[in-house]
Amino acid sequence: VDSDAPIVQFVDRPGILDLGWGHPIAAALPVAEWSAATEAALRDFGWQMLTYGHASGPGPLLDWLTEHLLQTDAGRTRVAETFVTGGASHALDLVAALLVHPGDVVVVDSPTYHLALPILSGHGAEIVGAPADHCGIDPAATADLIATLQARGRRVPLLYIVPTFANPTGRNLPDDRREALVEMAGRSGVTIVEDDTYRELVYAETAPASLWSIAGGRPVVRIGSFAKTVAPGLRLGWLNAAPDVIDAIAQIGYVDSGGGVNHSVALTMATLGASGAYDVHLDRVRQLYAGHRDALVAALQVALPEIEIESPSGGWFLWLPLPADLDAGRLLPIAERSGVSFMEGTAFYKSAGGEDHIRLAFSHLGPSDLVEAAHRLAAAIQVCEAPE
Amino acid sequence: VDSDAPIVQFVDRPGILDLGWGHPIAAALPVAEWSAATEAALRDFGWQMLTYGHASGPGPLLDWLTEHLLQTDAGRTRVAETFVTGGASHALDLVAALLVHPGDVVVVDSPTYHLALPILSGHGAEIVGAPADHCGIDPAATADLIATLQARGRRVPLLYIVPTFANPTGRNLPDDRREALVEMAGRSGVTIVEDDTYRELVYAETAPASLWSIAGGRPVVRIGSFAKTVAPGLRLGWLNAAPDVIDAIAQIGYVDSGGGVNHSVALTMATLGASGAYDVHLDRVRQLYAGHRDALVAALQVALPEIEIESPSGGWFLWLPLPADLDAGRLLPIAERSGVSFMEGTAFYKSAGGEDHIRLAFSHLGPSDLVEAAHRLAAAIQVCEAPE
Repeated sequence: VDSDAPIVQFVDRPGILDLGWGHPIAAALPVAEWSAATEAALRDFGWQMLTYGHASGPGPLLDWLTEHLLQTDAGRTRVAETFVTGGASHALDLVAALLVHPGDVVVVDSPTYHLALPILSGHGAEIVGAPADHCGIDPAATADLIATLQARGRRVPLLYIVPTFANPTGRNLPDDRREALVEMAGRSGVTIVEDDTYRELVYAETAPASLWSIAGGRPVVRIGSFAKTVAPGLRLGWLNAAPDVIDAIAQIGYVDSGGGVNHSVALTMATLGASGAYDVHLDRVRQLYAGHRDALVAALQVALPEIEIESPSGGWFLWLPLPADLDAGRLLPIAERSGVSFMEGTAFYKSAGGEDHIRLAFSHLGPSDLVEAAHRLAAAIQVCEAPE
Repeated sequence: VDSDAPIVQFVDRPGILDLGWGHPIAAALPVAEWSAATEAALRDFGWQMLTYGHASGPGPLLDWLTEHLLQTDAGRTRVAETFVTGGASHALDLVAALLVHPGDVVVVDSPTYHLALPILSGHGAEIVGAPADHCGIDPAATADLIATLQARGRRVPLLYIVPTFANPTGRNLPDDRREALVEMAGRSGVTIVEDDTYRELVYAETAPASLWSIAGGRPVVRIGSFAKTVAPGLRLGWLNAAPDVIDAIAQIGYVDSGGGVNHSVALTMATLGASGAYDVHLDRVRQLYAGHRDALVAALQVALPEIEIESPSGGWFLWLPLPADLDAGRLLPIAERSGVSFMEGTAFYKSAGGEDHIRLAFSHLGPSDLVEAAHRLAAAIQVCEAPE
């Protein structure tokens, strides 16, 4: 054997409590439940689990999922509007492969999920950040931006947004903006790709109605994932779209050739869902991550009393404003010398912006590590702010 | 629940023995073995199996696979030359995403795997069939074709071929042509994509050395799959390429975002491989499919004594020449009325060709069904040939 090839994506840096990684904590991963579900699925579905699967996903998962979505969102989603993917990022790639041509413009929120940008630009899109304020994307100003682009002869096929428990801000787009955005998209001929990855990681009340449910279908494609609720290593997610879009994705060359893109895992998920184990697990995970959030927020409030900490009501991320005149790029090396790390806000902006914020993931470290990380971060900020 | 969405891709047509489907027979699928491997993998790797995986594949699978390839092919393949994919078709899509630009020409064998064509054209390629004869692709004439295309200013980034136990012919490209093809590709700047899906389904002696091993790396990308040896529903395969190509694929947007594209299944496969269960299973599968082939070949030889039947030494397909003046398109509806079906040879040619052949898959039906199918086919051919 000639390698020390790693098993996982995470790279540990000893001595650093790294809040940069949006990864799950090991304790949140349902090892025993997944083992039991695999055994049960292979017993129930037998060879059908191992042969070529139905292109848009196996019926048992589509049936369970569309029922389940009724509990997490407003409005009914139909099986014909659902395609099972190899995760949320794969879903975005499939949509981009279908709708984006080289030279098109794709509009994204400001800030937005940074790793969506190479997926979109990989299909030849020019990416433009939308006008936005503290509450999120500005629908009227975005309509103007798109109209201007279209008047210049540019195609604008997609607008990508994470409106619910957003990455990186943790915020929800207000309901009136959701409605205005859907209406704007309908008028301008733009498809909204709604990355709804964090919907079920809700720590208070319920998540807002999705753009998908508000639109009742077109012009929205909604992306969902089991990465945060069950496990990212499964590479299992889905997208909701109008039936003709679903059909077109099912006819993409390698989907048609290989059948369902993650068939055996999809049937295992159907078993986990139908058994009730998913609901039990999700309750536990919600409580776990809510505890992470509370530990981090409380520690930051004590350690950084001069900063207004916005506690997210769902998701994995806290978007921390820095004291005036402290740039995230200046803070980072000092923080790392103090044994803590994070992602600079600039990573989440297509162009200028974000120097005054950092993203803290509270998913990957447990409460006591998060408290220690908050102390180290506060100490690093104090070093930066000390008079020279 | 609003659907009767199917579980699997195969669509049964009652009363028809359908040799058109290149699917495995249920008895070849290792349900118990996969269940045991999943349990063991989750026990051994725990949460590491469920979190984001290493982008090019988890170390344990890369290590086992590169050792295993030593037994199936000439020459050593390194971990740095290996990327784990969601099946062979997904591997082809990744390579095309990396190397093909809209307007490029991709050259394919004549005949070739028909479902590769939409994968390639989905990336904007114009597809051109290579000159070929009964022994396979003609390297010198293909070099001339590529030179002519390049002289006209066309980019020709890829040549796609299934040289070993080919789909649809079941044939192996002769060794001298393999060497000439590799040499030609090096001279002309074309990357050969060698679809090596059937290598391990060898029923006599050993499979020929791959183009990948002959080239010792560039200019070949070799695609492998666990779909035929273990199970297509796993959506697990790999590609071998020069390390810089592997790195570039690992940096494709959604791979970078989601980590390893089928992480949990890949670790299960590593466990199945390292346990020895893979070798035991593969021996059984080889014997099973060799028995299928023998049953079909013997029945065809008896039922169609005027046709020279070429018995493939590996793979899933028999490429049957039709009697002179009998077109496959004329035979098909008569055969279906007789309760048997197949794929017309024309499906495997980019342009003209194949009217005089049909592809018979012997993977999906057992020996007694294959014998009955051969009788029905012979009866249909006799109907077509009867004087009017």
